Amino acid sequence: MTNINKVQLVSTSGPDLSPDKLEYDQAMLQVELKMRKLLQTAPPLIRRQTSHLAKATGKGIRARSLLACAMGSDDLISPGAVQAATAVELLHLATLIHDDIIDDADTRRGIETLHVKFGQKIAVLSGDYLFCLAFDLAASIPPREADRKKVDSVLPSYFTEICLGEIREFSNTGNLDLNEGEYFQIISEKTAALFQASFHAGFLLSDEPPEVRDIYLTLGQEMGIIFQLADDCLDFISSPQKVKKPVLIDSRRGVVTLPLIYALRVDNTLRGKVEKGLAEQELKAAVLAAGGIEYTRSIIAERRAKAEQLLSALRSTSKRKCLERLLEQAAAV
Amino acid sequence: MTNINKVQLVSTSGPDLSPDKLEYDQAMLQVELKMRKLLQTAPPLIRRQTSHLAKATGKGIRARSLLACAMGSDDLISPGAVQAATAVELLHLATLIHDDIIDDADTRRGIETLHVKFGQKIAVLSGDYLFCLAFDLAASIPPREADRKKVDSVLPSYFTEICLGEIREFSNTGNLDLNEGEYFQIISEKTAALFQASFHAGFLLSDEPPEVRDIYLTLGQEMGIIFQLADDCLDFISSPQKVKKPVLIDSRRGVVTLPLIYALRVDNTLRGKVEKGLAEQELKAAVLAAGGIEYTRSIIAERRAKAEQLLSALRSTSKRKCLERLLEQAAAV
Repeated sequence: MTNINKVQLVSTSGPDLSPDKLEYDQAMLQVELKMRKLLQTAPPLIRRQTSHLAKATGKGIRARSLLACAMGSDDLISPGAVQAATAVELLHLATLIHDDIIDDADTRRGIETLHVKFGQKIAVLSGDYLFCLAFDLAASIPPREADRKKVDSVLPSYFTEICLGEIREFSNTGNLDLNEGEYFQIISEKTAALFQASFHAGFLLSDEPPEVRDIYLTLGQEMGIIFQLADDCLDFISSPQKVKKPVLIDSRRGVVTLPLIYALRVDNTLRGKVEKGLAEQELKAAVLAAGGIEYTRSIIAERRAKAEQLLSALRSTSKRKCLERLLEQAAAV
Repeated sequence: MTNINKVQLVSTSGPDLSPDKLEYDQAMLQVELKMRKLLQTAPPLIRRQTSHLAKATGKGIRARSLLACAMGSDDLISPGAVQAATAVELLHLATLIHDDIIDDADTRRGIETLHVKFGQKIAVLSGDYLFCLAFDLAASIPPREADRKKVDSVLPSYFTEICLGEIREFSNTGNLDLNEGEYFQIISEKTAALFQASFHAGFLLSDEPPEVRDIYLTLGQEMGIIFQLADDCLDFISSPQKVKKPVLIDSRRGVVTLPLIYALRVDNTLRGKVEKGLAEQELKAAVLAAGGIEYTRSIIAERRAKAEQLLSALRSTSKRKCLERLLEQAAAV
């Protein structure tokens, strides 16, 4: 085999990463640098595509979560966690590329989507490439302790779940009968699984005792669900400038989310109107008037309170504070 | 996270697999059973797609190669190798699904392709799903010895290579200037990488000493190249019934392969004719008349001789014989 990727991985994990443990902000800076470097120095064949993606790499809430969870009792983070966090962001980027194909989305993070700019076929392959690169990166992380699972061996099953979530969402396109339970199953798979993967990987790379593992897993799941609930509200109430993506995109592509599910439940006339075809602004007004946003916000608050309670079980104050901030960020709507 | 896949993996690696080591034929039967079971018992959401795929699962030359390489000095194969071989076939299936989207192929292995039957979007996601399932399966294989790499940590970089090969092939669609060097780079990545991965995984799961690792890697690479060369010949000379896929598909979709590269080199009039548009049968006749097939066959023979020489360095007679048979099968044209 040629060693394009090997060389690349070695060079990116080489000079710009000290073998010493890092503070949280430093670690996140390293993730951002590493991510940009991987995208900008990809093999020439795919560099146009990856460089395009490097223009807008997102806020990195999954990477930040992983790093926060990986904090040791000395509040420091091992270099392996930087690698794992980069891998998770690459995985996320790969899913976004395929997602955007499925959703026919034109823009993402304020820039043109890959399939619009380079065509659907190259976009499928670019997603596959980033996906493999992420696993390749994860595979080189040594476990924190000999008896712990390796990060790359916990990632695949989460990723299978994400695929199932995408398929479940897609197969419910335009389904106005979607109920809350089904909605939560979709977001649990398509979004919360990768948050849980980040929390799980962070835990494995920390020095936390095995008995708190389940706290991390539940926290990851909750954070992901809260994040998606907030995102689904923003789709109705934000301006395109603010969220850097078209708003009301969910309704336009027939994705039914909690604000609409609630509105359909309390406003008996809405279903008929939606079926006949409702202008975007009318749909937005109807969902708001029915209290769909308020209801979703109340669920976010409930789940956030539950998550904060779980957080209080963690022994490190800095870690707790860091995760509280991330939770606040995820819930912001 | 829900535990759909975990449960599934446990149940398939459970009762139907004895913990004892297996003979080669038994092991391959296990791979076929496992593969069929994984596809037929996938989560209901995706079972229609995976069941469709289960109707035609291929000859499994990659799985057979892996099993042969995994043979111990007692000629037996560990159950981990059955899992690894299944993972490799699943990976291969995932790439075929995305490949067929890229190539606009209508049939594969004698049945309708997934994107034709279920649509492009579901096909992208089904490929992603199988890809993850393969990594998930590979992640649960214990290393043969403590100091050996785990199979799942060697797979990703090969897979990155396959993606690059696909992209390289796609970006050379219709490129009549493609030279032999570029052609060999494409097939080395898009095909030989997965053969090399199979040989590498087999080696890791065998009791061969570390110093013969490179022999396995080179053999895998050669077997893959020979297989692709033969496949590229078959595209010109076989009947659709025989290869269970449409023939002359490469030329139809603008993929330039060695028989055509050679024919373009020796027949100065051919390029002009191809550019003007040549009927399929005329192209076939021109490539045959120019000796494109004979030339490719001579390259196959050369590389096969080299591979057989490498094989003679292996200590086990049964393993050697088994790999010789597979080499013969790969080279058959």
